[in-house]
Amino acid sequence: MIYITRRERFNAAHRLFLPEYTDEKNMEVFGKCSNPNWHGHNYHLFVTVKGNINPKTGFVVNLKDLSNIIKQYVIEIVDHKNINLDVPFMAGKLASTENLAIGIWEQLEKPVKGLGAELHKIKLFESENNFVEYLGTNA
Amino acid sequence: MIYITRRERFNAAHRLFLPEYTDEKNMEVFGKCSNPNWHGHNYHLFVTVKGNINPKTGFVVNLKDLSNIIKQYVIEIVDHKNINLDVPFMAGKLASTENLAIGIWEQLEKPVKGLGAELHKIKLFESENNFVEYLGTNA
Amino acid sequence: MIYITRRERFNAAHRLFLPEYTDEKNMEVFGKCSNPNWHGHNYHLFVTVKGNINPKTGFVVNLKDLSNIIKQYVIEIVDHKNINLDVPFMAGKLASTENLAIGIWEQLEKPVKGLGAELHKIKLFESENNFVEYLGTNA
Amino acid sequence: MIYITRRERFNAAHRLFLPEYTDEKNMEVFGKCSNPNWHGHNYHLFVTVKGNINPKTGFVVNLKDLSNIIKQYVIEIVDHKNINLDVPFMAGKLASTENLAIGIWEQLEKPVKGLGAELHKIKLFESENNFVEYLGTNA
Amino acid sequence: MIYITRRERFNAAHRLFLPEYTDEKNMEVFGKCSNPNWHGHNYHLFVTVKGNINPKTGFVVNLKDLSNIIKQYVIEIVDHKNINLDVPFMAGKLASTENLAIGIWEQLEKPVKGLGAELHKIKLFESENNFVEYLGTNA
Amino acid sequence: MIYITRRERFNAAHRLFLPEYTDEKNMEVFGKCSNPNWHGHNYHLFVTVKGNINPKTGFVVNLKDLSNIIKQYVIEIVDHKNINLDVPFMAGKLASTENLAIGIWEQLEKPVKGLGAELHKIKLFESENNFVEYLGTNA
Repeated sequence: MIYITRRERFNAAHRLFLPEYTDEKNMEVFGKCSNPNWHGHNYHLFVTVKGNINPKTGFVVNLKDLSNIIKQYVIEIVDHKNINLDVPFMAGKLASTENLAIGIWEQLEKPVKGLGAELHKIKLFESENNFVEYLGTNA
Repeated sequence: MIYITRRERFNAAHRLFLPEYTDEKNMEVFGKCSNPNWHGHNYHLFVTVKGNINPKTGFVVNLKDLSNIIKQYVIEIVDHKNINLDVPFMAGKLASTENLAIGIWEQLEKPVKGLGAELHKIKLFESENNFVEYLGTNA
Repeated sequence: MIYITRRERFNAAHRLFLPEYTDEKNMEVFGKCSNPNWHGHNYHLFVTVKGNINPKTGFVVNLKDLSNIIKQYVIEIVDHKNINLDVPFMAGKLASTENLAIGIWEQLEKPVKGLGAELHKIKLFESENNFVEYLGTNA
Repeated sequence: MIYITRRERFNAAHRLFLPEYTDEKNMEVFGKCSNPNWHGHNYHLFVTVKGNINPKTGFVVNLKDLSNIIKQYVIEIVDHKNINLDVPFMAGKLASTENLAIGIWEQLEKPVKGLGAELHKIKLFESENNFVEYLGTNA
Repeated sequence: MIYITRRERFNAAHRLFLPEYTDEKNMEVFGKCSNPNWHGHNYHLFVTVKGNINPKTGFVVNLKDLSNIIKQYVIEIVDHKNINLDVPFMAGKLASTENLAIGIWEQLEKPVKGLGAELHKIKLFESENNFVEYLGTNA
Repeated sequence: MIYITRRERFNAAHRLFLPEYTDEKNMEVFGKCSNPNWHGHNYHLFVTVKGNINPKTGFVVNLKDLSNIIKQYVIEIVDHKNINLDVPFMAGKLASTENLAIGIWEQLEKPVKGLGAELHKIKLFESENNFVEYLGTNA
């Protein structure tokens, strides 16, 4: 068993808020992250998959294939978008880094299986000071 | 003459577009940066000032003072904000990194003089791949 | 279960030595890290906590609260200090990165519990080439 | 139990290819990584060992000793070399990052034991976007 | 006048040597960089252009256009290649970082002019410890 | 004319204070940087030299020689030391980053000339947020 990780990046706007709260109440709970006109981040996404090495290729997965899958199922959907308004897999969810990491896991779990490997971890940086890690419901 | 630089960071949403263009025309000129629902960045701002060393303190400027000025005149105005909608010094300007760097220069030029130094350069990273440098109208 | 990490930084002086050794013997065992007049580092501290997502906020913990706790129980005590002389929770211990990481864990374990989460890992960088990870006595 | 990691770096050339394939077939399977005249990388190697803290020294292992062992058993053999042609422990293997990480593990497992610690993880970056982690056959 | 920089990356093999020297003499002059079987690097290339801001777009140049030009005239020619053997614009030159930076300048000077800006600086990192800057023959 | 830069690193303790001030007055002027028991940093030093390319070697200077000179005249004197107490070229000076950068320039100016190049810039990072640049008395 060996682990291989691919980094991809995306830029997006978001806002932390509850629609049933007033702006004041949102500011109290979520601070400046609740700014009604949005703010944004350069997200850094690390996708780790695990599996056995294919003796023919020396690879767990071809990183080109892994990169393509991440681009198709995640980057094209979130990059230069508004996480709250534009991203179907985040509809109705709070746009926290935690929920975004889980949403990305759910987008990638099956396609990674299709490459003959297993999704191991989603690590999502919102900034150089904050990141979330999710290892699925079995971890 | 010696140069000293302070880094500060902010997160913001923005959109590149011309109001007189259609969304299609904006997409043609500005690409995905024109997404109508905004996107965003972790901006890294490097403010360089120059001057002579104060023989008493060994400093050109006290970095705490420089940091405070950057926070007061820039970070509190742009952090967790929408560059197009929320930032008075960007009103009526295209929210490009170039214009944002110049706007930041104009915010800081006088306060830096008040510290007994001279503003030398604004270096503004929009991402790890893109940055702008501005040295004022005399450079 | 999801993991969230906050980075904080501090600068400190320290020295590796045993008081019962001569300077020569300390130099033999600890090398230049035993310099009697101290040396220092920019430490980078990554605090990882785990828990379930609060469905109301989308958070495991509010990162602002986590940051405040790290500042109160660690950063204010160690930043711009001498680890050997100024830090009560390191009194009588060798000021190695290993012992410092464990001391930080002990400072944070209870306050993190008070936020409704569980401390998972202390990762402490002494330099870009060296870091220590501690996961508690149950790991 | 505590974990300590040392980073070392090396630069090397390599090529991904199967000798029984034509250049065209290799290009199809391995892409531009199969360029017959080689390409290369700045590899970043993170070696993590685990153990108990020696109460006398405050260390799991002396990082100087760990660094020396990594240099002797890995860096001197791979640095400024061609992974396919010059590295005995990679002879007859595909020069993938996966195989290189396993080869490095096998080089270091015993010498780390000789320091009184246990090798825990090899993390090998081929670029800032790609890395492999290997935890041995028991992980 | 404002400066804008785009980073692109490439991986390549190279060797420092003079064909008229023996391997021993090359080792004496160029050290391990003269390994006959090549070694390699992840090069980081920063291309800085200068000009006036187009009042219509807010840009000096569209970074997408600048990125495309760098890819066409540099990256596609050097990426995953052998600098000594595969790169027409380096033919007959020593594959030092200095010469490579000048070669890249000569590839980009005209195409950047075609974008309505002026090439200002090539900054080329061979590793995190070494980089070269070239500002043209007029600097 | 081309510019080449070598990075070296060192760790050191220091304190900002004036001996004629009380601890309270020092705290007022220099803040927590005046802690009487010292604090410290991982300094990152970038030394830039300029010159013409030697047509025989393709180099401005051999980076190995430049690295050796930096180690001999700077790193061995400051690494794992106390800037205020242990460093002859800082004796009697305030241990600010500004003064340290100038002291390093004075240590290196002549030895760089001995390599057939000219010292162009000392860039000294005290942390990822603060750095000083010095270009000599003629700049």
